[in-house]
Amino acid sequence: MINQKCAELFRKLRQQRPLLHHITNYVVMNDNANIALHIGASPVMAHAYDEITEMTAIASALVVNIGTLDRKWIKSMELAIRTANEHNIPVVLDPVGAGATSLRTDTALHFLTEYRIDVLKGNAGEISVLAGTGGQVKGVDSVSANDPVQAVKIAAGKFGVITAVTGKEDIVSDGQRTLVVKNGHEWLSTITGSGCNASTIVGAFVAVGDDKLEATACALAAYGLAAEKAAEQAQGPASFKVALFDQVYNLQPEDLINGVRIETLSQITH
Amino acid sequence: MINQKCAELFRKLRQQRPLLHHITNYVVMNDNANIALHIGASPVMAHAYDEITEMTAIASALVVNIGTLDRKWIKSMELAIRTANEHNIPVVLDPVGAGATSLRTDTALHFLTEYRIDVLKGNAGEISVLAGTGGQVKGVDSVSANDPVQAVKIAAGKFGVITAVTGKEDIVSDGQRTLVVKNGHEWLSTITGSGCNASTIVGAFVAVGDDKLEATACALAAYGLAAEKAAEQAQGPASFKVALFDQVYNLQPEDLINGVRIETLSQITH
Amino acid sequence: MINQKCAELFRKLRQQRPLLHHITNYVVMNDNANIALHIGASPVMAHAYDEITEMTAIASALVVNIGTLDRKWIKSMELAIRTANEHNIPVVLDPVGAGATSLRTDTALHFLTEYRIDVLKGNAGEISVLAGTGGQVKGVDSVSANDPVQAVKIAAGKFGVITAVTGKEDIVSDGQRTLVVKNGHEWLSTITGSGCNASTIVGAFVAVGDDKLEATACALAAYGLAAEKAAEQAQGPASFKVALFDQVYNLQPEDLINGVRIETLSQITH
Repeated sequence: MINQKCAELFRKLRQQRPLLHHITNYVVMNDNANIALHIGASPVMAHAYDEITEMTAIASALVVNIGTLDRKWIKSMELAIRTANEHNIPVVLDPVGAGATSLRTDTALHFLTEYRIDVLKGNAGEISVLAGTGGQVKGVDSVSANDPVQAVKIAAGKFGVITAVTGKEDIVSDGQRTLVVKNGHEWLSTITGSGCNASTIVGAFVAVGDDKLEATACALAAYGLAAEKAAEQAQGPASFKVALFDQVYNLQPEDLINGVRIETLSQITH
Repeated sequence: MINQKCAELFRKLRQQRPLLHHITNYVVMNDNANIALHIGASPVMAHAYDEITEMTAIASALVVNIGTLDRKWIKSMELAIRTANEHNIPVVLDPVGAGATSLRTDTALHFLTEYRIDVLKGNAGEISVLAGTGGQVKGVDSVSANDPVQAVKIAAGKFGVITAVTGKEDIVSDGQRTLVVKNGHEWLSTITGSGCNASTIVGAFVAVGDDKLEATACALAAYGLAAEKAAEQAQGPASFKVALFDQVYNLQPEDLINGVRIETLSQITH
Repeated sequence: MINQKCAELFRKLRQQRPLLHHITNYVVMNDNANIALHIGASPVMAHAYDEITEMTAIASALVVNIGTLDRKWIKSMELAIRTANEHNIPVVLDPVGAGATSLRTDTALHFLTEYRIDVLKGNAGEISVLAGTGGQVKGVDSVSANDPVQAVKIAAGKFGVITAVTGKEDIVSDGQRTLVVKNGHEWLSTITGSGCNASTIVGAFVAVGDDKLEATACALAAYGLAAEKAAEQAQGPASFKVALFDQVYNLQPEDLINGVRIETLSQITH
């Protein structure tokens, strides 16, 4: 059962405390670092071209998030991805705002086509734009996407990468097998960076898991489960955020055994 | 009555969910993004020269905050302001630290004299320095200002821009008409970025309001009202901040009808 | 007694409200600004080469933190340190990640050997690497250090700088006299930037204290004392953080008289 696997993966994560090299956006750096710590990883944020190869080489996973990119950072991101590829370090790409500007779309596509990305995780609009199935992105918000499940499958096939769309339900696919994560809470949509935090947690799980499709789904389920618990304490988005971070920290491997709600797509009517 | 207008404007804001393009400082990026979400807008942070024209063009308002500027960012800010001017998108300028260094003062003056800025919002020291009425700024704190009301009026007339000074009372003027916002709470002075958050909320209101003087006053009143409610839950500045962000989210248009305290200057003895 | 001195120093800090110029990392900028405000200082974050000399010259202390450095920021840091040296403004250096990459190690060593640094504060791994006593750093975490007390003393002697290692107990030494700060709480290790915040508070205390060894120990004790109080309210790391920031603000000089636990090394068995 996947719930058992999620729990074991989470236990492994807490034991190994993998180093996550982030090149992420300015908005969420503090949040990403904290959520990495709370889930059980060791975060490092480093973007200087001169230290990328050294830093990425010792990491257990690389998380690249293009939320506030510019030409200089793109170069560093590219070097980090190349370094990760050379050392067989898993790479998670969060294409924040792809579809909103050509710089973001082109950068995400460049990384996806020229390098090995292990997990691509975005919102429905971003993934639809990258898949070419016709979504729309305004700023960093998904405005429309024809069919998220279709977009995820197409992107996964097109780029040969495990692809995840987060939303009311999260869809994760490698092009063949598609999982739906039913954990989560609508409060997540009221705070900035909740998708970015999901990418960090995915990075932590794929750092320790061989089956990266399941590791991605487990990560999203764990984060969603923490959100469900946090929602009980929320009086608004900021107190929800405090509770969410507390709950990610307080989450135990055993909680995943009963709490995770992951289904494979064939079980679901769409 | 302005209270009714504020409530209607707020209702419109929550319905339209305007996209706010921010080029803001590193310190408050996360806070500005969250407060934008909570008040009902959609925030995007983007500073790369290569994507500015695309990003600003789709925004409903542009918020420029010079709190951690450098030459590269100034170029992007300038391009964003020019783009906003071309598309008739309102621009809010927060001249953080103007008066403390010539780079900041010169940059703010350059934007104010070469482009159309819709709202200039700062502390008493910053606005006095820009107005040339002799204020003093140390770091990013206002140290002295001879007469904030006078400074606001002079800046508004000199630059042809709606000018707001935040402080114990907020003063907003277009040079002719001057409004005093009596909402707010002293806890706001204990957290970093509370003025920057005010600028974000002003951006959200001017994005949907034609009368930008009233929209600015309504925005500051709404923020101040949320602060008043939050103060009841504060055990210190950090719990105040959590409560403030919750209250901004929980604020309803109807709350403004009774809660807003805006007066026109003639009613007030100075 | 040092407790009395700490209390007097804290009283002076709250009265003088020293301006702290920070060139710090992106991850903790917001936290550092807030903790500076809460302890009683006035923070300013500025990194533009063009404004460094003006900004540093009016500051009461300079805090340099290399947590997310790059070549451009290093130049600004160097100019700020040089300016501080020229104006006899105390400098606190936090060598985040020294030992993890040569860029970080070299930058920290360059600052320490070419300029006057007043206080060097890091974790055991970072200080051991800089002292040359054989520590190990992975990302920004201390992985191993042979003997922190030895490393602190050697670094202090080698660079002629007051050196502090934070950890379960904090060790502060000028090479001759060594103090051990026993305040603190393990919750501090669960949030990002808690060492960086300590550096900010050290900056605030050395800004107003002539005996920089004692000022450093008092700063770390005050921060640790606030952490002890905050721990009582924590339900996880995020609620601990909110409580910590509240407690730093609520801390009164009198609290230090009974609360500070600083010992000189000779009193302690190792």
